[in-house]
Amino acid sequence: MARNTEVAADHDAPPITQILAQFVAGHPSRGWSDAVDHEAHRTFVNWLGCAVGAAQHEAADAALAAVRMLEPAPQATVLGRKERVDMASAALVNGISSHTFDFDDTHLKTIIHPAGPVASALLALAEHQGSSGRELIDALVLGIDVSCRVGNMMYPEHYDRGWHITGSTGMLGAAAGCARLLKLDARKTQMALGIAASQPVGMREQFGTMTKPFHPGGAARAGLMAALMASHGYTASPKALEAPRGFAQTVSTKNDWSQVTGELGQRFEISLNTYKPFACGIVIHPGIDACAQLRGQGVRPEQVERIELKVHSLVLELTGNKEPQDGLQAKFSVYHGCAAGLTFGRAAEDEFADEVVNRPDMVALRRKVVATVDDSIDEASVDVTAVLGDGRRVHVFVEHAIGSLRNPMTDALLEGKFHGLADPVLGAAVTGRLIEACWGMGSAADVRRVVELAVPH
Amino acid sequence: MARNTEVAADHDAPPITQILAQFVAGHPSRGWSDAVDHEAHRTFVNWLGCAVGAAQHEAADAALAAVRMLEPAPQATVLGRKERVDMASAALVNGISSHTFDFDDTHLKTIIHPAGPVASALLALAEHQGSSGRELIDALVLGIDVSCRVGNMMYPEHYDRGWHITGSTGMLGAAAGCARLLKLDARKTQMALGIAASQPVGMREQFGTMTKPFHPGGAARAGLMAALMASHGYTASPKALEAPRGFAQTVSTKNDWSQVTGELGQRFEISLNTYKPFACGIVIHPGIDACAQLRGQGVRPEQVERIELKVHSLVLELTGNKEPQDGLQAKFSVYHGCAAGLTFGRAAEDEFADEVVNRPDMVALRRKVVATVDDSIDEASVDVTAVLGDGRRVHVFVEHAIGSLRNPMTDALLEGKFHGLADPVLGAAVTGRLIEACWGMGSAADVRRVVELAVPH
Repeated sequence: MARNTEVAADHDAPPITQILAQFVAGHPSRGWSDAVDHEAHRTFVNWLGCAVGAAQHEAADAALAAVRMLEPAPQATVLGRKERVDMASAALVNGISSHTFDFDDTHLKTIIHPAGPVASALLALAEHQGSSGRELIDALVLGIDVSCRVGNMMYPEHYDRGWHITGSTGMLGAAAGCARLLKLDARKTQMALGIAASQPVGMREQFGTMTKPFHPGGAARAGLMAALMASHGYTASPKALEAPRGFAQTVSTKNDWSQVTGELGQRFEISLNTYKPFACGIVIHPGIDACAQLRGQGVRPEQVERIELKVHSLVLELTGNKEPQDGLQAKFSVYHGCAAGLTFGRAAEDEFADEVVNRPDMVALRRKVVATVDDSIDEASVDVTAVLGDGRRVHVFVEHAIGSLRNPMTDALLEGKFHGLADPVLGAAVTGRLIEACWGMGSAADVRRVVELAVPH
Repeated sequence: MARNTEVAADHDAPPITQILAQFVAGHPSRGWSDAVDHEAHRTFVNWLGCAVGAAQHEAADAALAAVRMLEPAPQATVLGRKERVDMASAALVNGISSHTFDFDDTHLKTIIHPAGPVASALLALAEHQGSSGRELIDALVLGIDVSCRVGNMMYPEHYDRGWHITGSTGMLGAAAGCARLLKLDARKTQMALGIAASQPVGMREQFGTMTKPFHPGGAARAGLMAALMASHGYTASPKALEAPRGFAQTVSTKNDWSQVTGELGQRFEISLNTYKPFACGIVIHPGIDACAQLRGQGVRPEQVERIELKVHSLVLELTGNKEPQDGLQAKFSVYHGCAAGLTFGRAAEDEFADEVVNRPDMVALRRKVVATVDDSIDEASVDVTAVLGDGRRVHVFVEHAIGSLRNPMTDALLEGKFHGLADPVLGAAVTGRLIEACWGMGSAADVRRVVELAVPH
């Protein structure tokens, strides 16, 4: 029987499962700069707003209805709702909600949305066991470091192959963070990473359906359960990440091990986290920013004959849907993003409502957008020219869209975004108190005092 | 930024997600031969014995301890134990137990162990909702057909790459079977397959650790939850299996679509299921059978100077560990299998106990086994020569080991195996009644009457 039994071996693979486990178990609390610690709070604030804001979405309804068939114990909060469920189910549902609006954070080097899997698992476990805010923030920094370093190691091959890298690395970050919260030693942390390594979640084909936000939720639940199982002595391969038929070499042909090991404990990937000003795929953001700038320069939709868009090929590959049928599809349409930017000057969740997406003027405006590929333009940039009915051409080039690493959202903008998401759910006054509590998370005695503000009354 | 954005497109991919969904939702009850229906009962009996037998293993203890941290509702039985947990957790733990001894069933074309993911999910759901035995058997045949057809499509490339194909196809069979049990229509069944498609579980590096049996358990839980979510309207891509960045093309470069669609509803893969007479990796079985035959011919371990073994290269690749340190490792050691066959004439769970594996005479006998690769020998065959101290050479060639498709275990042998597993847990009398109840499953009014016999008193 003829078989290909060749192993994609890399005998130079360092023992990264063990290296990461020792790092997660042993790195000192707050063993990083104030800037890193502040970025952890920004990451948490932004994630929480997204989860609260999408708590009433039909994806959360459906997932929660399925979970309730398990008659779960009321261990942890479903953010933005009154239901309480077991901590693993809370990790799942909050992970889904936080990514439902595609409005969460982005580690731009890998297009990973790191908080969804990691923060969702951590908050559910921390609430159940009454962890301190400092323990939560420490676990968040370390968990995100694990996910994003593994992402750096495999990107872009792993993503190009078809994996939704958020869910296919997120279970490792969630496992690492939960192991830290559970105070597991390095050996058990290594087992938690190993159990999680068998559970990557997510294919890119799911983009535009509820299963896309399922990916961070599923990864959160998988990582949390992996850590709980390891805490009780469940075993996995100590080389589950790096072995020839372990995680990395099975799901990626590119594995730059030094991305995991280099400057570990000195450089923290959460420093490279960014927050979306627009509620859609990150590669659309420059186009929205540019069209909002056109609007700021006085260009009105009814004047426009054509919008010429020059973008990197990845933009059309990911978001080339010119005729989106609903809000979820529109989040992956650079055409809708441009139409929203020009029409409203913004593109928050409201501008992706089904009714807005199907408005005749929006349909018409999308059809006036002509996108061409120019790979000399970075995927974080865009070149836009509005051709008006009177023959005038108005040109905008966006090098770094708002929300990028070079042009980040300020804390005040993050608060504004949070209010936009959470005010309709919690009311403005409680939302304000919740934001304050989040900024003070690092010194909170018990995360439960923060979480209880995220429940509507 | 240079990127490989090439898609592994196969524009000839038929809509297999939809085709399988229509098949699972629409195929008539018992729409197959009596032989197929009997094979479904054999599959169920064999799976149940394995799950009951391993119910007290430390892997089940650790997994159950983690699950109990969720304070689960008592919805479904943990087989062979008194604990009851929510149905998703029961699917997980029973999936783990049934594969812990590596003693379950094997679809030889793909090395998939199909019952672990599928039966574990189905029984938990069927028990909770009070399904009939006929509904369970129907769902078992259809679910296993889905897993194994997808496996046929991708094997061997997918397996060779590193995936533990049992868990990386099993979530689809579990989702399909549970969708059938829930009486979902074709559209919702398609969504269940789609949600499950994002959740392949398992890398081969985990072989020899508790995370190997976690794979069927995790796949069972994933498939069950996917079906529950779909029943409440959760959506996924309708092309989640076949799209360029869907499941199949992300996890395998070989995708022979006709393996899914050909003779669908006429040929049933469960007909090709086999049951292990030995509690270890299937490729070791010919070696054990041959050495047991040597023992039958009067060869005694103390006479042996050397055992010459000629095997297919895959045998040594999968089970080439000459110095296993414990029972789990010994299950992946053809050397230990041969030593057990010659010493005991059998290799059930007892012969893989840590104490047996570490006995000095077993260590010594393993070291006398000299294995060489000969790829002219099928991986289901073996050529063994015992060289004795007096210079005699005793030769055995096994073409089809006991338990293979050509030389299957009889129903009576299956019952004997079941007693060996379950008697220590349930007692011989109850075990006998449980076996009877299983053979009558297809006409049982409520599966709960069967399940309650699997609980120790």
